[in-house]
Amino acid sequence: MGATRARIAIDAMGGDYAPTEIVAGALRAREELGVEVLLVGDPQQIKPVPHQNRLDQIAIIPAEGTVEMHEEPLSAIKRKPKASINVAMDLVKQKQADAVVSAGHSGAAMAAALLRLGRLRGIDRPAIGAVLPTMIASKPVLILDVGANVDCRPKFLEQFALMGTVYSQYVLGITAPKVGLLNIGEEESKGNDLAVRTYQLLKENKQISFIGNAEGRDVLSGRFDVIVCDGFAGNVLLKFAEAVGEVAIQILREELPQGLHGHIGTALLKSNLKRIKQRIDHAEHGGGLLLGVAGVCIISHGSSQAPSIFNAIRLAKEAIDNRVLERIQSQNRGVNLEVKDQGSEVRG
Amino acid sequence: MGATRARIAIDAMGGDYAPTEIVAGALRAREELGVEVLLVGDPQQIKPVPHQNRLDQIAIIPAEGTVEMHEEPLSAIKRKPKASINVAMDLVKQKQADAVVSAGHSGAAMAAALLRLGRLRGIDRPAIGAVLPTMIASKPVLILDVGANVDCRPKFLEQFALMGTVYSQYVLGITAPKVGLLNIGEEESKGNDLAVRTYQLLKENKQISFIGNAEGRDVLSGRFDVIVCDGFAGNVLLKFAEAVGEVAIQILREELPQGLHGHIGTALLKSNLKRIKQRIDHAEHGGGLLLGVAGVCIISHGSSQAPSIFNAIRLAKEAIDNRVLERIQSQNRGVNLEVKDQGSEVRG
Repeated sequence: MGATRARIAIDAMGGDYAPTEIVAGALRAREELGVEVLLVGDPQQIKPVPHQNRLDQIAIIPAEGTVEMHEEPLSAIKRKPKASINVAMDLVKQKQADAVVSAGHSGAAMAAALLRLGRLRGIDRPAIGAVLPTMIASKPVLILDVGANVDCRPKFLEQFALMGTVYSQYVLGITAPKVGLLNIGEEESKGNDLAVRTYQLLKENKQISFIGNAEGRDVLSGRFDVIVCDGFAGNVLLKFAEAVGEVAIQILREELPQGLHGHIGTALLKSNLKRIKQRIDHAEHGGGLLLGVAGVCIISHGSSQAPSIFNAIRLAKEAIDNRVLERIQSQNRGVNLEVKDQGSEVRG
Repeated sequence: MGATRARIAIDAMGGDYAPTEIVAGALRAREELGVEVLLVGDPQQIKPVPHQNRLDQIAIIPAEGTVEMHEEPLSAIKRKPKASINVAMDLVKQKQADAVVSAGHSGAAMAAALLRLGRLRGIDRPAIGAVLPTMIASKPVLILDVGANVDCRPKFLEQFALMGTVYSQYVLGITAPKVGLLNIGEEESKGNDLAVRTYQLLKENKQISFIGNAEGRDVLSGRFDVIVCDGFAGNVLLKFAEAVGEVAIQILREELPQGLHGHIGTALLKSNLKRIKQRIDHAEHGGGLLLGVAGVCIISHGSSQAPSIFNAIRLAKEAIDNRVLERIQSQNRGVNLEVKDQGSEVRG
């Protein structure tokens, strides 16, 4: 486990701050995490970034262009075989890299992963998982899907629960992760058609610890380790959660200076504010893992800067070191995880 | 407008803190808002509440029992014709009251409203609207549906947009409310099947100011006055938003005492914390309006205490004074609102 250095292909051209911030995050990860990074993109744009002297020992894998945010992902991925995200995926396919990290067009990253790497056996639809902090500081919650599949069938959500359980257990280090179904009430009969039918599947599945419905108010309670939902509800929730952190900080800033001694308090609290922001900031959580494709793929925010990229690479390293893909496949075939621990179907 | 005192039927038996807190909120509303309140419930339970001397001039309308939280709403409403929520609705039907406020089983309140009052003409499905504060202190956002209809068709959401526009304009006082469609991307092509089809209807409807998709991160931005969605996504979002306020306060409490001068700052900030809590607390917003039924119905949280009930009654008063029901029916028939201002189809 971790005997060889994890090799991470970085889509250096994807994201609002590419390539400068992407490269900066990759450089830091290389130095602090001991991973090997492969920067994929246009060498002419990558080389002039700040700290270029630190680039000397890093492989730059040439690519031509990138998928733009306004492009329809699937057709763009097919039309631009040498786009940075495609080249990065190919590195994994050719076993020259163990994972891909991209802050570019998330739909394009998913399309590229599906077309170049394919799905894991037994998985109908890959899902994007996102980790949120909860009221209990040491207990994050994994939510999936947060955007890959907007219209879902019950068995997709069941597969999300299986994949989420493995991820929670082996990357987040949670023993027997408690799984919840995002819903609008506690009772088994509550919810839309999808939720009602999914409840039955989850209840009967012996491979997961399903503890019932998770309402909106339960998401951050720390009671659930994994929450499954369709990609529409999950995406709305994730983006709302991210924004609400900023709203909370803003309300704090507006409200604190008021009152008798408020302004004194505010001055004293500057450093505290920074720490609070850190705790709720999505940049600290790195990005979403695309679960269910035959490769480790981390999809970061388009707005990612160096700290997010660093954390995304750390996430990728955890997934590699803990052989998440193999475990998902084992779990999904109903095979005892420990028995399959010695295998290496996916990473070869 | 407001020439006669608004008469509000209060379901005194509904909610976790019934009847004591419900009655306390009603008493305060009667005194401060100048409304007439009719307490519906078991007189033997209502009369012994604190401040009973203030009950002397208040009508208590006897009812037998209530719909319990675990009961299936529709069958319970039919099986218990004298339950407090049914009696309250009957008061509106018989024109002895102008509105109902209940913190009881929300499904039961909706079922009772539908069965006893019926729908407004042109409305297929009533919706529950909830008002949330945004980043801009003076600009709340109305979200609907937040739980009445978990599986929706595009035309339901179009009707929600029409009803929301009227409510925003005449109760919240917003001129030409900007309407958004809850979705997972900005582009017209984004979203699940429901969102894609609803987009087209909203775009073509000349009675509303549709300004496009609202992503999760846009909900609290203040850019939208009304956001429409199905009751599943809306309920998840609402309950998450309510809980997140509490999480923010808790993180504040935990984090503030740290750091060099943190504990001094915390002491100074106690009063500020209270104000912050007020700004994000759902109790301040009273509850949801059930829009689309032939009566003003406010559905409050099960956990409502006196301040929530007071605010719910204020909301009911606003809706009555501004003749929201008539305006919804006018709008929905495409009739100029001002022309219909003199009518009184619903309140008789």
